[in-house]
Amino acid sequence: MKRYRLVVDCPDQIGLVAEVSRFLAEHKASITEASHHTDHEAGWFFMRHEIAAESFQLSLEQFKAEFAVLADKFAMNWRIVDSSQKQNVVVMASRESHCLADLLHRWHSGELECNIVAVIANHDHLRQMAQWHGIPYHYVPFPKENKQPAFDEVSDIIKQYEADTVVLARFMQIFPDALCREMAGRVINIHHSFLPSFAGAKPYHQAYERGVKLIGATCHYVTADLDAGPIIEQDTMRISHSDSAEDMVRKGKDCEKNALARGLRYHLEDRVIIHKNKTVVFD
Amino acid sequence: MKRYRLVVDCPDQIGLVAEVSRFLAEHKASITEASHHTDHEAGWFFMRHEIAAESFQLSLEQFKAEFAVLADKFAMNWRIVDSSQKQNVVVMASRESHCLADLLHRWHSGELECNIVAVIANHDHLRQMAQWHGIPYHYVPFPKENKQPAFDEVSDIIKQYEADTVVLARFMQIFPDALCREMAGRVINIHHSFLPSFAGAKPYHQAYERGVKLIGATCHYVTADLDAGPIIEQDTMRISHSDSAEDMVRKGKDCEKNALARGLRYHLEDRVIIHKNKTVVFD
Amino acid sequence: MKRYRLVVDCPDQIGLVAEVSRFLAEHKASITEASHHTDHEAGWFFMRHEIAAESFQLSLEQFKAEFAVLADKFAMNWRIVDSSQKQNVVVMASRESHCLADLLHRWHSGELECNIVAVIANHDHLRQMAQWHGIPYHYVPFPKENKQPAFDEVSDIIKQYEADTVVLARFMQIFPDALCREMAGRVINIHHSFLPSFAGAKPYHQAYERGVKLIGATCHYVTADLDAGPIIEQDTMRISHSDSAEDMVRKGKDCEKNALARGLRYHLEDRVIIHKNKTVVFD
Amino acid sequence: MKRYRLVVDCPDQIGLVAEVSRFLAEHKASITEASHHTDHEAGWFFMRHEIAAESFQLSLEQFKAEFAVLADKFAMNWRIVDSSQKQNVVVMASRESHCLADLLHRWHSGELECNIVAVIANHDHLRQMAQWHGIPYHYVPFPKENKQPAFDEVSDIIKQYEADTVVLARFMQIFPDALCREMAGRVINIHHSFLPSFAGAKPYHQAYERGVKLIGATCHYVTADLDAGPIIEQDTMRISHSDSAEDMVRKGKDCEKNALARGLRYHLEDRVIIHKNKTVVFD
Repeated sequence: MKRYRLVVDCPDQIGLVAEVSRFLAEHKASITEASHHTDHEAGWFFMRHEIAAESFQLSLEQFKAEFAVLADKFAMNWRIVDSSQKQNVVVMASRESHCLADLLHRWHSGELECNIVAVIANHDHLRQMAQWHGIPYHYVPFPKENKQPAFDEVSDIIKQYEADTVVLARFMQIFPDALCREMAGRVINIHHSFLPSFAGAKPYHQAYERGVKLIGATCHYVTADLDAGPIIEQDTMRISHSDSAEDMVRKGKDCEKNALARGLRYHLEDRVIIHKNKTVVFD
Repeated sequence: MKRYRLVVDCPDQIGLVAEVSRFLAEHKASITEASHHTDHEAGWFFMRHEIAAESFQLSLEQFKAEFAVLADKFAMNWRIVDSSQKQNVVVMASRESHCLADLLHRWHSGELECNIVAVIANHDHLRQMAQWHGIPYHYVPFPKENKQPAFDEVSDIIKQYEADTVVLARFMQIFPDALCREMAGRVINIHHSFLPSFAGAKPYHQAYERGVKLIGATCHYVTADLDAGPIIEQDTMRISHSDSAEDMVRKGKDCEKNALARGLRYHLEDRVIIHKNKTVVFD
Repeated sequence: MKRYRLVVDCPDQIGLVAEVSRFLAEHKASITEASHHTDHEAGWFFMRHEIAAESFQLSLEQFKAEFAVLADKFAMNWRIVDSSQKQNVVVMASRESHCLADLLHRWHSGELECNIVAVIANHDHLRQMAQWHGIPYHYVPFPKENKQPAFDEVSDIIKQYEADTVVLARFMQIFPDALCREMAGRVINIHHSFLPSFAGAKPYHQAYERGVKLIGATCHYVTADLDAGPIIEQDTMRISHSDSAEDMVRKGKDCEKNALARGLRYHLEDRVIIHKNKTVVFD
Repeated sequence: MKRYRLVVDCPDQIGLVAEVSRFLAEHKASITEASHHTDHEAGWFFMRHEIAAESFQLSLEQFKAEFAVLADKFAMNWRIVDSSQKQNVVVMASRESHCLADLLHRWHSGELECNIVAVIANHDHLRQMAQWHGIPYHYVPFPKENKQPAFDEVSDIIKQYEADTVVLARFMQIFPDALCREMAGRVINIHHSFLPSFAGAKPYHQAYERGVKLIGATCHYVTADLDAGPIIEQDTMRISHSDSAEDMVRKGKDCEKNALARGLRYHLEDRVIIHKNKTVVFD
């Protein structure tokens, strides 16, 4: 069933919900899901509606034109999205296959609402997995001495496929600042620790050294600050002294896959609103 | 800060939210929390608002009178509650003290918004715990041969204290049907299993016999159907073959305390709406 | 690294561990993992050792011959397994692909220690997934009016591949009693509820009707009693009123995949000992 | 039932378990629980036995004398503990009562195997809670300008009560280095975050600022490095954008209570072995 998703954030103000609701009701919107949140400390309001498209009396273009008046009045950041217009997603990987395989299966079985348009990797051995799913595979080597040309190529591929979202599915190269800024809010990473613990390299080995009793994973937007972008989703699992660093690596994969899949789904269904360095997630 | 809580459920209909929002905005309600849910299968709508009382231009009485018109139009079940009017709560217990002690401490430290007005127990040994907290203690024995007089006494005590809510904090007697019906939606029980598994007596021993790898607890409203009332909250915890039935009893107490405390808090803050045999919980 | 796994259960008795330890030490066994459990209620003892094979001075055959003397003395059920002799595993599926895809990827990436020798399914549409992994696919239809010939064919295929273990990865047909008995302790099922809740058909819909706040999955050995065999592993996840039965189906898949993968790994690494209708799992 | 607990750690070596098992069997020890762990990276072995005391043919003194020979041979760190000799525990608190109340109730109801001999606090308002439990209360103010005299008084009180273990139940003063060293392995703290995230002051507010989707608690031994001592137990719970820092403080209390109670129980039952900056916990 086609739906429109109206996503709004703006300064909090009395009458806001009333006017938006009136607007929707006037045009006979049948609302299938409605979420509201006020951040009282920031004085900021967040709202998401799902509307049964066939109930709505305006076209998407008319909606945009008419709603813009309201949006201006309340200084809204807003977007309305047609759920049938799926996002183009590029997935990037390195050696580890578990996150890529998991995303591809979820997509293939219809769980993830998107078009996976390409896989980019800095190793060549996941090619067959991508191709079996009918997805073009771009092998882009990242030589240690100079990675900028590789990132330029990545950037070109992203543009070529008109990617809306890029998913770093255990891609182990650090995105350059310029690309982070250019794609702000559109690049999703899975980090293999419960951030802010164990940012940076080899988090499971850091966890092993520290002797923690939990490991975890964090799905977040990529920013120029390494592993410090807005968090979408996290998960942890219990470990014990009997787990070696290698055991943690193995066990943690389930955390990583699940946190990434949930986080990406929230993003693709327009359930995430970024505000400063945090997210509102209407799950 | 005093708040009004407006809780509504009714047949789903376009325009409903618009009219309620307009009504609230017209009277300058500053909404601190808003939750909506549509049960599409049942065609039923649920809504809860928290309103900063000092922002609102109507008295509670005026609100009720004016809102009633709207409520009639949409065939609403509804209530508006002044958060400063705390509910009277009677807690009932048997031998086990962990749930009672936990609730009393949460109440004493200000975490639970209510007046605990009395403790009723079918054993006498928790008296001092209640009395240290300044709460009257009623010891009501339940002779095996005829329990009705005991329940009549319980019923009288509940009435005497004008209890809004009764909490069965591991009270091990089965409420008679008549009392269940009379107090429908106002009696909260904690059952020491993840229902519907292991309803009835000795759930941990049932769990031990079955060899499950998880134990749990369920906070639910009491109905005439034993352990089958609407569920408010559940929790589970991992166990293993090394846990005896006694270990499960000990470990499970933490599940019980936490599930009961969360469930009761939702109830006291008017976050729970019962619909048929299920609940909507706006947590 | 090749390991021997010595798995023992027997009546509990003083001196047992001492004699087994002495035996192992005399032959210079370097023990990489040792687990003990006494079920005091049953008076039964369980023990599992992993031994670095290259440290051990006896061949597997010599070990078996010499250990048999000790085993007789203590009336042990026992086995010693060479970790390099991987089990043959047949996976059975129906329409749903998530468990099969998950197992195949874990196997393909080396996480699961076994040979997946065949996939059997009562639908034909997972054929390509199996074949991409280089695994023979047997499509065996199960006509409603008479399923015994289909089960006979399944039984033949299992024998043809010399399967040690059969995994029912959301295979939706009920195994006949005879096959259950013949393969006791060797058939692993994933049931999509936290058993004993919601045994039988459509557990998520049962869960939706009951209004539980948790869903789950149970990995267990198949016995002639439907969904009542010894439990290996369980997991739960939190849901809310906003989840439809379809949402539960989708979310629950992650529980199913993870519980099945963990349970199967325990089984393949000889970490599970069945005793009556329960399991000891040395994880 | 009285038990002896034999706790050993030493360099890993073949024959170790055999000799210990032989020793125990020779003296007819009925072993109720046995746990082994080898840290292969460190080449270190850990072992804990619970022995039914009435089965054992040696007195505790004789045991110690005879076992010492074995212990020397294998360069063991070891202790044997009579479970009927309960540890003396001093609990320290500040303003927050939830951890203290929780520990006192668990102790009072027999769940925690110890003698709580005194409560020390740098505020006076938890006095009645301690005294209702029959426990002496020492109010020791900590003036900002010079805290050493206060710590000297604390140290004296600990000695006066012959405390084996000190529990910092949300005690908000930093132990001086000298006291940390003097009481190494005997002071247990609960920190209100999933360490190493959010060490130091106001962890929930740090968590709120970072926008994490999980909060947690860590029970650990106190060392001179603030919040960096060996971790015994951790727990996390899910939060969302709708939780304010104050909500996190409230919700996190349940994590804190449960992690502290579990960690302390492990410690009191001699289930924890510290090795360098990590713990082995035989739970």
